[in-house]
Amino acid sequence: MRAMFTNSVVPQLRSLGLGGAVIVSRKLHCCGTGESNIFSMISDLMVRPANPLVGITVSDGVISVIVTAKAESAQAAETMLDEMSGQLAGRLGDYVFGRDEQTLAMVVGGLLRSKKQKLALAESCTGGLVGKLLTDEPGASDFLIADVVSYANSAKVGLLAVPQETLHRHGAVSEEAARAMACGAVECSGADWGLSITGIAGPSGGTAEKPVGLVFCGLARRAANGKAQVVEVREWRFVGERGHIRSRAGMAALDLLRRALLAGN
Amino acid sequence: MRAMFTNSVVPQLRSLGLGGAVIVSRKLHCCGTGESNIFSMISDLMVRPANPLVGITVSDGVISVIVTAKAESAQAAETMLDEMSGQLAGRLGDYVFGRDEQTLAMVVGGLLRSKKQKLALAESCTGGLVGKLLTDEPGASDFLIADVVSYANSAKVGLLAVPQETLHRHGAVSEEAARAMACGAVECSGADWGLSITGIAGPSGGTAEKPVGLVFCGLARRAANGKAQVVEVREWRFVGERGHIRSRAGMAALDLLRRALLAGN
Repeated sequence: MRAMFTNSVVPQLRSLGLGGAVIVSRKLHCCGTGESNIFSMISDLMVRPANPLVGITVSDGVISVIVTAKAESAQAAETMLDEMSGQLAGRLGDYVFGRDEQTLAMVVGGLLRSKKQKLALAESCTGGLVGKLLTDEPGASDFLIADVVSYANSAKVGLLAVPQETLHRHGAVSEEAARAMACGAVECSGADWGLSITGIAGPSGGTAEKPVGLVFCGLARRAANGKAQVVEVREWRFVGERGHIRSRAGMAALDLLRRALLAGN
Repeated sequence: MRAMFTNSVVPQLRSLGLGGAVIVSRKLHCCGTGESNIFSMISDLMVRPANPLVGITVSDGVISVIVTAKAESAQAAETMLDEMSGQLAGRLGDYVFGRDEQTLAMVVGGLLRSKKQKLALAESCTGGLVGKLLTDEPGASDFLIADVVSYANSAKVGLLAVPQETLHRHGAVSEEAARAMACGAVECSGADWGLSITGIAGPSGGTAEKPVGLVFCGLARRAANGKAQVVEVREWRFVGERGHIRSRAGMAALDLLRRALLAGN
């Protein structure tokens, strides 16, 4: 295929006057907000035609801003990309989590690794998805101690020491349960961070008060005395089918941890 | 699109003499052996041309035998499919785990549900993948209590009560560790079944004795006295990149449980 392209396709493209130009792209991946908000922050840079050209694509909860530059040389194109992606990054701030081939899980893993901190997960509705994402890349044993997927309430009590009273009073999908699960993750594993996810992935199981798509994520930190301390608990209401809600919940949880790690915790 | 197809495309196909025929397909999904073995079991039924036509595709460790029948009516085509898929199913025996849109996780979940039995997982190298697969479909709370992803050795000891001595003597990737993890899954959760996976997903971490791709799966059952009893431990040596090894390991574990459930356990 390479030989065919080099020996046959390239000469024909050159004869059509298409030779000589270099086209290079760069991606800035964002999360933590919606496509419309990202668009409104950079819409004046997206006017067409333009070189470099700025576009937005969305896939699985990740909003990617793609910059494409065309120039006489690779170096000239890269310079254009540097300038434009610098400007975009300045506008988008910490919504930008990574570039090009980086995934959110890779970025979170990299931050934990560089800080030599360890994580334990406590998943419920995501059923192991976040653990799977964090271990897709090799080397996760540098930072991941365990992922306790406590699908049944009995597992939340037995494995994560969530008080029965909390589940009885507030339900398994609640701020209080997310808080207790995050603390339980820290305390059952000795990790520095505990990250929890509990929600209603649907399609059934929703109520007027707790609809399908309601997700709570909790983040806890091991304090100097060894006990877990809650850093933050957040509530989201995602819309869509089961797979989409689970994927968005996993990303939201990872982003919560990313922001805490970036904040110098 | 429907109107365009019905009003414009169908009449043109009819005028070409292609009307009136009905083409229907059915898939038999297999696992637990290789494509070449499946092929050798049914190759005489795969001679071309034929109606119904029998073909094989492989994706992510699943070997699918596809039967396509062409007939004057849907009923005639279905009768041909029934006859041929019956013959194929007889040849392939319990390598066939499901049909059409069924996944292995759906089949295992369905078996557990129909037997009103509960499962706890103990994953290591798969990092939550099997829990994720089992919870992709709604209703997994009918049979899944927990998935303890014990990525670090400390989690195998702390959460699953794997003896430190077992890890020290045999290593985390060993028959003995898989055995202890499966028992730990039953005992920490009260589940009827404990299914464990420990292996070397790579690309690094392999040795001559324990190469990348080495995977042990353990299956334990809760006995009448409440204690866990090992049903089976199996060893596999998968070849390929990390994602492929993890996916094959997850399928092998699910298939181990499927066979035990089918055996009337």
